Amino acid sequence: MTEAEPPYPPIIKGASFLLAWRLDGRKVLLIGGGLVASGRLYYLLEAGAHVTVVSPRKRLHPETAYRIDVSNPEDIIYEDRDYVGPEEDKLRVTDYDMVLTAIDEVGLSRRVCIACREARVPVNVADVPPECDFYFGSQLRRGPLQIMVSTSGRGPKIASLIRKQIEASLPVDVEEAIDSVGKLRGELRQRAPGTGGPLGQKRMNWMIGICDAWRLDELGGMTPEVRKQLLDEGWNQNGKILSPKDVGLKSGVAGWMGDVRTKVVDTLAGGDVQVLKAGVLGFVLGAVIPGSIFIGSLYQRRR
Amino acid sequence: MTEAEPPYPPIIKGASFLLAWRLDGRKVLLIGGGLVASGRLYYLLEAGAHVTVVSPRKRLHPETAYRIDVSNPEDIIYEDRDYVGPEEDKLRVTDYDMVLTAIDEVGLSRRVCIACREARVPVNVADVPPECDFYFGSQLRRGPLQIMVSTSGRGPKIASLIRKQIEASLPVDVEEAIDSVGKLRGELRQRAPGTGGPLGQKRMNWMIGICDAWRLDELGGMTPEVRKQLLDEGWNQNGKILSPKDVGLKSGVAGWMGDVRTKVVDTLAGGDVQVLKAGVLGFVLGAVIPGSIFIGSLYQRRR
Repeated sequence: MTEAEPPYPPIIKGASFLLAWRLDGRKVLLIGGGLVASGRLYYLLEAGAHVTVVSPRKRLHPETAYRIDVSNPEDIIYEDRDYVGPEEDKLRVTDYDMVLTAIDEVGLSRRVCIACREARVPVNVADVPPECDFYFGSQLRRGPLQIMVSTSGRGPKIASLIRKQIEASLPVDVEEAIDSVGKLRGELRQRAPGTGGPLGQKRMNWMIGICDAWRLDELGGMTPEVRKQLLDEGWNQNGKILSPKDVGLKSGVAGWMGDVRTKVVDTLAGGDVQVLKAGVLGFVLGAVIPGSIFIGSLYQRRR
Repeated sequence: MTEAEPPYPPIIKGASFLLAWRLDGRKVLLIGGGLVASGRLYYLLEAGAHVTVVSPRKRLHPETAYRIDVSNPEDIIYEDRDYVGPEEDKLRVTDYDMVLTAIDEVGLSRRVCIACREARVPVNVADVPPECDFYFGSQLRRGPLQIMVSTSGRGPKIASLIRKQIEASLPVDVEEAIDSVGKLRGELRQRAPGTGGPLGQKRMNWMIGICDAWRLDELGGMTPEVRKQLLDEGWNQNGKILSPKDVGLKSGVAGWMGDVRTKVVDTLAGGDVQVLKAGVLGFVLGAVIPGSIFIGSLYQRRR
C-alpha cells in the first residue's frame, strides 16, 4: 500500500440515528386503534407513556380494546370517535410529547404531521416514511435488555427474521448477567461515591475490567457474596480485577461445556439451529473419519 | 389452571421506546469535542446530519479534529471556542433539530437542557440521565442493517459485550439478504403500484411469504433472474410463493452444510465460538462413543 490508512473509520451515510427514547410519564397521542395502532400501543405502554387513543370503538383491534378496557385502563385516555383534525379537534398536538397516527386517511395524517413539525412534536405517520421523524424497527426485550433491528426501510419482515435469529442466539442467562452488572455497579457507587473526575474514570475502568474478565454466564451466576468479594478483595486492593478463578469458581472445559449446554437449551427453545447442526455434523464426521481409518487399517492387516 | 390466560402479553413497564431517528439533512448542535463527543459525531455524520461543533481546539479529541479537518469538513460547522450559554450564545438551541452536550460543566449543561425542553428540541446531556430525552445504546451497522442494544442504563460495557456477540452470530451474507429483499420489494411495487388497500395487503403478504420460504443465505444469493422468476411465475400466477427448490436451487443437506460453513467462517472472523465448540465437542463424542462400542465389541469377541 502506498497511501496511509485513514486513522478512523470512514463515514458511510444513509444510517438512522438509533435511540432509546424516554417516555416514562410522557403524554402521547395515538390516532387510530387498528392492528398497527395496537403494536404501537404495546410499546408505548411498556415505556410507561400515558396514551390518549382516538378511534371509533368499531374500528378498534381486539388488542387495543383489551389494553383500554382490561389491562391498562389507568394508562390510557380513550376517545371513542374520529380525530377531526389538528386545527379543529379539541385535542391539540402541542399538548403531547409525541404523536403517532395509524389511520387510512392520508390527507388527515398529512395535516397532523405538518402541525406536529410546526410545534416540534415528534411525529410518526404509519406507512408514510416522509411524514415520519423516526421509524420503528423490529425489537425484542428480555427484562433490562432491549434490542432493535432496523433495515432502513428495506423490509419489516426481514428485520423480524434477523431479530428472531438474534433472540435465539442470546444466552439464556443474559438478563441475570445484566442484573449482576447493574447491582455490582450500584454497590461500587455506594463504596466510592461522587460524580465524574478521576474516581469516576477509575470506577468505569474497573467495571470494564470485570466485564472483560467474566463471561456472560459467569456474570449471571454471580452471588451477592461474590460481588462483595470482588469489592473487598479487588476494588479495595488498589482496584484489582478478580477473575472467576480468583474467587474460586471453576472455569475452563467445564465452563465452555456449560456454554454449549446453555446454547443447546437455547436452540431447543428458540430457533437457532446452527449450533445443533454443527454438533451433529461434528458427531458424524467424528464417527466416520476415525472409524474409516480404523476399518481401513484392519483391512490392510488382513491382506 | 383455574384462571383463563390473558389473550395478549402483559405490559411490563420500565422499557425505553426504541427508535430509528431520521437526521438526514437535519441540523444538530454538539457542545463539546472530547472522546464522548467524537463518538456522538461519528453516528451523527453516518445519519447524514449537519453538525455544528462548539469546543476549543485544544480540547478536541483527535477523531473530532479529524472529522472537522479531514474526513467531513462539508458536514461540520466548527466553532473554536467555549459555548457561552443558551441565553448568551449567538447559537440558539431553537435553530437546531437536536442538541447534544458532552462537556464537564454540569451547570451549563443543565441550562442547555432546560432551554431545549422549553423549545421542545430533543436533548441529550452526556452522563446526566435525568437531562436526557433519549439514551444511546451500543450499536452496529452492516450496510442497510442497524442493530442497537440497550440495557436501560445498567451498563454500557455489558451492552457492548452483547452487541459483539450479536455481531459475531450474524450470517456473513446478511447485508446481501436485506438488499435482495429491498430490490424484490421495489420490483414488486413497479409491477403492482399503488398505496394501501387490498393490493397493498396482498403485496405485503407475498413478501412475508417469500421471506418465510427462503433462508437468509438463500435470499442473499438471489440473482436478478431469480427475482424475475419469482414475480413472473409466482406473483403473476395469483400471488404464488415460490421456494428456492421451485426455482431450481438446491437445498436440503447441501443447504444446511452451507449454513454451517458460513457460520464457521463467521466464527473464525468474529468471536462466536459456540458453533466451533459444538462442532469440536460433537467430533470428539462422535469419535469416542462409536469407537468405544467397537473396541468393546472386539474385546468381547476375543474373550
